[in-house]
Amino acid sequence: MTYCLGLQLDEGLVLLSDTRTNAGVDNVSVFRKMTVWQQPGERVIMLMTAGNLAVSQAVVNLLDEGLAGPDSDTPETLLTVPSMFRAARLVGQAIRDVFEADGESLKAQDTSFNASMLLAGQLKGRGMRLFQLYSAGNFIEATEDTPFFQIGEHKYGKPILDRGVNHATTHLTDGIKLALISMDSTLRSNLSVGMPLDLAVYRRDSLKLEMNRRIDEDDPYFSMIRQRWSQALREASLGLPDPDW
Amino acid sequence: MTYCLGLQLDEGLVLLSDTRTNAGVDNVSVFRKMTVWQQPGERVIMLMTAGNLAVSQAVVNLLDEGLAGPDSDTPETLLTVPSMFRAARLVGQAIRDVFEADGESLKAQDTSFNASMLLAGQLKGRGMRLFQLYSAGNFIEATEDTPFFQIGEHKYGKPILDRGVNHATTHLTDGIKLALISMDSTLRSNLSVGMPLDLAVYRRDSLKLEMNRRIDEDDPYFSMIRQRWSQALREASLGLPDPDW
Repeated sequence: MTYCLGLQLDEGLVLLSDTRTNAGVDNVSVFRKMTVWQQPGERVIMLMTAGNLAVSQAVVNLLDEGLAGPDSDTPETLLTVPSMFRAARLVGQAIRDVFEADGESLKAQDTSFNASMLLAGQLKGRGMRLFQLYSAGNFIEATEDTPFFQIGEHKYGKPILDRGVNHATTHLTDGIKLALISMDSTLRSNLSVGMPLDLAVYRRDSLKLEMNRRIDEDDPYFSMIRQRWSQALREASLGLPDPDW
Repeated sequence: MTYCLGLQLDEGLVLLSDTRTNAGVDNVSVFRKMTVWQQPGERVIMLMTAGNLAVSQAVVNLLDEGLAGPDSDTPETLLTVPSMFRAARLVGQAIRDVFEADGESLKAQDTSFNASMLLAGQLKGRGMRLFQLYSAGNFIEATEDTPFFQIGEHKYGKPILDRGVNHATTHLTDGIKLALISMDSTLRSNLSVGMPLDLAVYRRDSLKLEMNRRIDEDDPYFSMIRQRWSQALREASLGLPDPDW
């Protein structure tokens, strides 16, 4: 399993992913699930992946090598696409190419082709965008009404995002805290989501990453957040008035 | 879908269930999922059910009619069993009887036989107990380490229980609040879990229900809890220190 989330706030983007992959509970590894393509001042594009790891890695390799997108015969990469929309179509094309290559064989082994990705970023002179891509290579975009996407094990960490994330009023720093709290709830309840974490923070129109950080098990800030949040939850629940029934 | 939860605290039991059943999003109904067998001063036994509604209702009917349990040829009901353990075996037997009667036909219609139940209560002179039963009619019991069980859509509402519920130190009143908060998170994120709710509260050794209440959409206390909890969560997350990275 995996848990990745992306927030699209008025101030910018917050992306957070875990690093645990597993084939059964007795075969657990650490793999980075977030990839960044950056040309400071020009473009920042980030991709997070969930699902079959071989599929995810093949997609990232194709994107690095370049592929003829649905809109052009000339090979394109995420460093050459002219817009985030074209970036999303290119990632979708890469997913379809991998399905074309591996889909049949996976099916023959009763293994499902599943891929789920979050793509976010901004190109110079264009809008900042956040997309969620499906196994079919199609995608949807975050809006002011729904300013966050989650892939993988999304349920445990959703209640805090539902209540806390507001496109217009949530500051980038608060977005980081909400993302970490959402991840903490998931880490605590699903063993197949695990540390370390990768955090990327992008401020709108800055065209370079403000933060691109690996958060380890012994990170003092994250440890403090986990402990303070547990305590705050307990206090908040105890602080509610007793039933008057 | 369904969400039911049971807390076994040192002070007593808190049981909470929703009432929504659905066969597709366009066929939604209200059914009580909690049944109580009570002889004040003698025994209180409560059952909550999730899964196929026809299976759940058949199990409750068999329990009311009485059935020869695995331990005896004389028909028993939950009003005649001599212990909570025997009550759990009787419910397990009822699940197996329904499977015997309907399992094959369900399979022929590609419908899975699924039943998941929480059984809790106390008999005079015996311990208070909480069990979770599976489709196979087997069961596990809550302990001091794991003092709560959930059936149905359990993920959204688990983080608050993981952090808040402690067998020894959580008071019955706080257990009610935690159960309502856990239900609120689930109601908010899964449309197939819905109001009204049924709440039962039992104080250890009292041998009668302290509370057996239907909570409607417009219940002022629950509305207040939902609103105050949202606010408390937002404030608690904003109150955490900013990252020092």
